[in-house]
Amino acid sequence: MKNILLILSGCGVYDGSEIYESTFTMLAIEENGASFTCCAPDVQQAHVINHLTGETEPGSRSVLTESARLARGKIAPLEKVHAKDFDALIIPGGFGSAKNLCNFAFAGNQCTVNSDVERLICEFHQAKKPMGFLCIAPVIVAKVLGKKGVCVTIGNDKTTATAIESFGAKHQDCTVESIVVDTTHRVVTTPAYMLGKNMLEVRRGIAKAVEKVLDLS
Amino acid sequence: MKNILLILSGCGVYDGSEIYESTFTMLAIEENGASFTCCAPDVQQAHVINHLTGETEPGSRSVLTESARLARGKIAPLEKVHAKDFDALIIPGGFGSAKNLCNFAFAGNQCTVNSDVERLICEFHQAKKPMGFLCIAPVIVAKVLGKKGVCVTIGNDKTTATAIESFGAKHQDCTVESIVVDTTHRVVTTPAYMLGKNMLEVRRGIAKAVEKVLDLS
Repeated sequence: MKNILLILSGCGVYDGSEIYESTFTMLAIEENGASFTCCAPDVQQAHVINHLTGETEPGSRSVLTESARLARGKIAPLEKVHAKDFDALIIPGGFGSAKNLCNFAFAGNQCTVNSDVERLICEFHQAKKPMGFLCIAPVIVAKVLGKKGVCVTIGNDKTTATAIESFGAKHQDCTVESIVVDTTHRVVTTPAYMLGKNMLEVRRGIAKAVEKVLDLS
Repeated sequence: MKNILLILSGCGVYDGSEIYESTFTMLAIEENGASFTCCAPDVQQAHVINHLTGETEPGSRSVLTESARLARGKIAPLEKVHAKDFDALIIPGGFGSAKNLCNFAFAGNQCTVNSDVERLICEFHQAKKPMGFLCIAPVIVAKVLGKKGVCVTIGNDKTTATAIESFGAKHQDCTVESIVVDTTHRVVTTPAYMLGKNMLEVRRGIAKAVEKVLDLS
């Protein structure tokens, strides 16, 4: 049975992994007869957002501990996982992917990527294993593999697309129910909640992305 | 379009709403052409569980604020919602439903139910509008409508079934992919993660429960 590594970034759209995107990814993996393993970096969240008010809350939360909520407790520290043990990698969206896995949400085209996230992406790339990135998460692979000319989508947001192209990557506009496939670099991306207006269309785009990642593995 | 009220109890299986059950409920509602509105009580969680270690963490979190993570910010205080504005009610499981909506997880058959949760269940019951309860959440309706002889399932756990029957309610064993329907009281229940071994079977049971709740409305 193929096993897909998921990198989570917390639990909740505004400071962690987008919950529906993550759940739909896991569901699509099981629907395709594969399994998944969750991991997350053992670092503190960039901040905690009150999801009711949108305001920053006092206090600090661990990305690994909060991600464990989304994994029903079964999660590994990202620092200890390696591409050799998995068939593919998928990173769901949510602001956490742009705040905790890299700092794109704060630094834009000057962003840096968490060193272990970068290491894993490079390991999967070198092993020619496929990778999927949802919603805003494609900025991470665009930064890491930009100089190789990787092609991704985040939907049609011009500012983000311009930042992606500043890394050397290519951006292709895409609708929420579609995917962009870079067959050379084995990278699959879909806009998800960058464009999604309801669960059904987000679910369809993610199901296509997961199926393609599994096809390529 | 029919609108279903969902009562959430936090965000995470051990101290809040079970994330996959809640997401699958919302997805099934949209798949059936209906919409949902989330609410949660504006009270503090019974406690905060570290989902990585299973241990109680220091600090306090709001049920409403944490539930907002599961609702992408769109959530109402349960205290301000009324059955007259909705076609049906569904309460997903997770320990939060047995810790924050009632105290069954701590008090067993001596439990009490949050007064606004009880008020809402009575309002839906009196209006002859259907209700669905997933996983451990059926203990809530068993407590509130037990003296009327409501029939529910939580799967096949004997201790919980005995507590349910101590309220005057009936318990019927049920598999994870099936549902129990009390047509007299318009109450639909399914075991979900009380028995679920994977997402696929939990998803199927919940899809059947949501479809039946919509049929009855």
